[in-house]
Amino acid sequence: MIDDLIARVNNWGRWGDGDQIGTLNYITPVAVAAAAALVSRGVIVALGEPLDHKNGPQKTAPRRYNPIHFIDELPVDNRLPGEVGVADDVMLLPLQATSQWDSLAHVSFRGRIYGDHSETMVTSHGAQINGIREIAGKVAGRGLLADFPQELGVDHLDEGYAITADDLDRNLAARGITPRSGDLLLVRTGFMQHCRARDWEGYHGDMPGLGLSTIDWLHDHEIAAVATDTASLEVKPFDAEGIGVPFHAVAIVHMGLLLGEIFDLEELSRECAADGTYEFLLVAPPLPVTGGIGSPVNAYALK
Amino acid sequence: MIDDLIARVNNWGRWGDGDQIGTLNYITPVAVAAAAALVSRGVIVALGEPLDHKNGPQKTAPRRYNPIHFIDELPVDNRLPGEVGVADDVMLLPLQATSQWDSLAHVSFRGRIYGDHSETMVTSHGAQINGIREIAGKVAGRGLLADFPQELGVDHLDEGYAITADDLDRNLAARGITPRSGDLLLVRTGFMQHCRARDWEGYHGDMPGLGLSTIDWLHDHEIAAVATDTASLEVKPFDAEGIGVPFHAVAIVHMGLLLGEIFDLEELSRECAADGTYEFLLVAPPLPVTGGIGSPVNAYALK
Amino acid sequence: MIDDLIARVNNWGRWGDGDQIGTLNYITPVAVAAAAALVSRGVIVALGEPLDHKNGPQKTAPRRYNPIHFIDELPVDNRLPGEVGVADDVMLLPLQATSQWDSLAHVSFRGRIYGDHSETMVTSHGAQINGIREIAGKVAGRGLLADFPQELGVDHLDEGYAITADDLDRNLAARGITPRSGDLLLVRTGFMQHCRARDWEGYHGDMPGLGLSTIDWLHDHEIAAVATDTASLEVKPFDAEGIGVPFHAVAIVHMGLLLGEIFDLEELSRECAADGTYEFLLVAPPLPVTGGIGSPVNAYALK
Amino acid sequence: MIDDLIARVNNWGRWGDGDQIGTLNYITPVAVAAAAALVSRGVIVALGEPLDHKNGPQKTAPRRYNPIHFIDELPVDNRLPGEVGVADDVMLLPLQATSQWDSLAHVSFRGRIYGDHSETMVTSHGAQINGIREIAGKVAGRGLLADFPQELGVDHLDEGYAITADDLDRNLAARGITPRSGDLLLVRTGFMQHCRARDWEGYHGDMPGLGLSTIDWLHDHEIAAVATDTASLEVKPFDAEGIGVPFHAVAIVHMGLLLGEIFDLEELSRECAADGTYEFLLVAPPLPVTGGIGSPVNAYALK
Repeated sequence: MIDDLIARVNNWGRWGDGDQIGTLNYITPVAVAAAAALVSRGVIVALGEPLDHKNGPQKTAPRRYNPIHFIDELPVDNRLPGEVGVADDVMLLPLQATSQWDSLAHVSFRGRIYGDHSETMVTSHGAQINGIREIAGKVAGRGLLADFPQELGVDHLDEGYAITADDLDRNLAARGITPRSGDLLLVRTGFMQHCRARDWEGYHGDMPGLGLSTIDWLHDHEIAAVATDTASLEVKPFDAEGIGVPFHAVAIVHMGLLLGEIFDLEELSRECAADGTYEFLLVAPPLPVTGGIGSPVNAYALK
Repeated sequence: MIDDLIARVNNWGRWGDGDQIGTLNYITPVAVAAAAALVSRGVIVALGEPLDHKNGPQKTAPRRYNPIHFIDELPVDNRLPGEVGVADDVMLLPLQATSQWDSLAHVSFRGRIYGDHSETMVTSHGAQINGIREIAGKVAGRGLLADFPQELGVDHLDEGYAITADDLDRNLAARGITPRSGDLLLVRTGFMQHCRARDWEGYHGDMPGLGLSTIDWLHDHEIAAVATDTASLEVKPFDAEGIGVPFHAVAIVHMGLLLGEIFDLEELSRECAADGTYEFLLVAPPLPVTGGIGSPVNAYALK
Repeated sequence: MIDDLIARVNNWGRWGDGDQIGTLNYITPVAVAAAAALVSRGVIVALGEPLDHKNGPQKTAPRRYNPIHFIDELPVDNRLPGEVGVADDVMLLPLQATSQWDSLAHVSFRGRIYGDHSETMVTSHGAQINGIREIAGKVAGRGLLADFPQELGVDHLDEGYAITADDLDRNLAARGITPRSGDLLLVRTGFMQHCRARDWEGYHGDMPGLGLSTIDWLHDHEIAAVATDTASLEVKPFDAEGIGVPFHAVAIVHMGLLLGEIFDLEELSRECAADGTYEFLLVAPPLPVTGGIGSPVNAYALK
Repeated sequence: MIDDLIARVNNWGRWGDGDQIGTLNYITPVAVAAAAALVSRGVIVALGEPLDHKNGPQKTAPRRYNPIHFIDELPVDNRLPGEVGVADDVMLLPLQATSQWDSLAHVSFRGRIYGDHSETMVTSHGAQINGIREIAGKVAGRGLLADFPQELGVDHLDEGYAITADDLDRNLAARGITPRSGDLLLVRTGFMQHCRARDWEGYHGDMPGLGLSTIDWLHDHEIAAVATDTASLEVKPFDAEGIGVPFHAVAIVHMGLLLGEIFDLEELSRECAADGTYEFLLVAPPLPVTGGIGSPVNAYALK
């Protein structure tokens, strides 16, 4: 089954052999300008979860950990003439630990990464291809919010609920939105606020998320990027047999689709409900980490 | 002299006792919406310098160092069922080492930080007030580029050249720009590309930059933030006697002005020259680091 | 009460105003030579707990965390001519997270650190006095093992059990040991193996440990250093009212006593039981970290 | 030529298929006890170079960097009842950056590591075999100092000087020392103090060191470990054609010989000259880093 899916959505070579940005190719200047024209109220909504060692979303993670913050110098210790003090700080920042974009080097499948390169192009010196720096200047366009809890009148989608293509169609249609090539899709499940309120209990276990059936939909609509408020974006338990993170495996490796996770969509949900508009300018710049596998991002939705 | 200057530009209490965002108060929804309306070509220009241990701008720094990148897991070592591999990475990220915003906790003067708080509010646990997280959702608006090398037909401003208020007036007027309250001002000296081409030799020594005389100008025009392509923003040698980083001391501590450094303005310079327009939508989200003194930023100029 | 205790055991000024090594002054060349003479079987017992991110003793700690290990370069990525590969690694090492010595800068009491210096001598640039580097070449001598579980025929001392001076006297006398000036005392409670077997559950909660009553004993016998197999060395709940870590406060700050924690004394217990001898040469070198507050240590007992 | 050498000194399988400690097998209880019997004056000499970010030996290194020290908590910020303050610190510690032992996983040659294992046993999760933890309890025995500057009356051996087997024979014979199986050999070139006095200028360029001709000597004498005061132990330029770090490639990979670098042998040189004895008890415990490629070490020579 997954091989049929891959055959339908594979983008290897679609934008040339040297392509390292995948579906971000869908974003055109026309699309960016049109997205900017959506800004009317002048409201900024930031989607980045705080980078916080004690209270961040990795608190209950089995393997990853929250960023660790060090004060390198206090003003009293770094004195310049005239009673001036300067503080500096340093962070040990796991690049997949907070609101973040996955680079196209993040996942391999059957030994290959996006563009049919060997997974061994990801080395202890960093991603030699498909790294986050390749897309660092590319992530802005029309953002859409598919807000399921708001639509359905629930606190959050249930653990294990696999969002379907029909769900996306219905949800967006209800807001009068027709997806366009180059759109950046945000999917709110409500699971983040639900778990955060419980000190992140359960955030990394079974969770709602995108099902495999949405991959054709994302491909057909030429979505440039998709992000959720969950830790893994895709539904858990996974909805394919015998394969881990199947959505990632197909979407990152074969489509070259930019995936985002742990986006805080709560305030955006409220702002969209307030003005009844679920489209906006989304500006979500990754940090240009040389060889980076991912990047934290504090995306701004401008309405 | 510096006390007279402080008396003129001090903003302590201007936006209430609890204010922690300083001149970002100038940015209004109206200003944001107007800025978005400047986007016509749909061009994205990213201003973030790569985070690169070997080749980053701290290569020649006396004290700071470039970010250090670790591959935490290679795809071959983190295997899921079905031949899926997952890579992760971690970065030791000095928060003042690359393109960055200084929080209002970055500098103290005579024992005080912005808002007349004690500098001891910056502790080994991070900034207890005025930290970067306070402004993480605030940095977007109309960007202006004052491109001095382009105006003057030089490669870069000379080391030690103190940009004046008259320089700013002349430069912007020549582009037909009238500064407005809430503008985000980018100042290109050309010094970054000059030093980068020499493997960053001299980048942290004497440098061109904003002179103290521009502080009244920034205050009077209600500029929300200012950033340059240099390591220190202000001119070196400093243009005040007996005080280190005098521009920072007045602007951060007394005005609450957001300062940015090491912004890569080269491509933006070319794009502005190409279309003749030196104003644009600038979206420059800091990371919401709890207690953070600063944050890397990959600002986008949208034209 | 604690003030009376301090009055009895205070060593400030005892070894001169500039002293930064405290009770390590008790260790003389004669004592070192005598300790070496104890080695007869040629057995080496290492007391260092593995530095292990996933399984280390901080697994259940409220605040500290285990060391984090990064492979900086794999042999396949760092190639020299002739098919030679070189691997390197890096560790984020909390200096109090594993088997470790506390420097005399680790704790302050009423604003002072050992030698009557201000606690502000410990700065964001490190300990300006009493740091671990000061004692880096000083920690070898006769080691004694007070093995309570072995003596009492129990698995471990109970949580909250405060070891007394009488306990030490009885335990050592039973092994025929008379403490001497400059001895390094190891105290086995069995609590480490007990908690490790339960995945470190409870290791940082209530625990057995040295009670305040042992301080006079340690002072009178001129013990140079004391270490246990617990996380805090002293008993929890603390056996003084209204004061946190009272043993540390008196012993480190007023006596200048070197304290060690999280020493793995299991194999040593077996070896001592095997040969019936509870004294040995102990060599326990801290790392000479400039300004360091503590250091990991892999002490060797040589029998 | 190098293949002939390898054929002569290869130890793969010598101590069983599962062996991970190589030449440390030479150290017997009898040897340890005999070494302890050498201690007469009770003098401790510590050989660890300070771990110091600004002034450490990697200051001039092309790739590695000195440890970075962070104060995690100051006493004023971590307050317990009764005016007790607790400081903690953290270090980013490159495990090959200071006085250190190389594990047997540090170098691969023609795809193999010690014991004929694949170099892919060294993964992004650490050394799966031959890691430093395997030897953490093994490094003590008779130490010998071959002090060439002292013997030859020079400040330091010249850059590029390859120490020979004859040099070792002559130097040790002059001190009346006959090497024995299990000895730990320290070789002082004087190059460390020479470069440190020049702010480490040249420390990582051409340097004196062990030549390939000493490998047979080390093998025949069954030396358990060898360490020098230089950055690379072996002479640079290398004394084999077309192969990088040839000494490491043969000694680590084929002999399983423990190599140490950046040992500070200055005080030891003075102490040995003072008492005329160049043998001593050497106790040099690595940290038991799970999967570690190397470890810092602050070795103690006890005389």
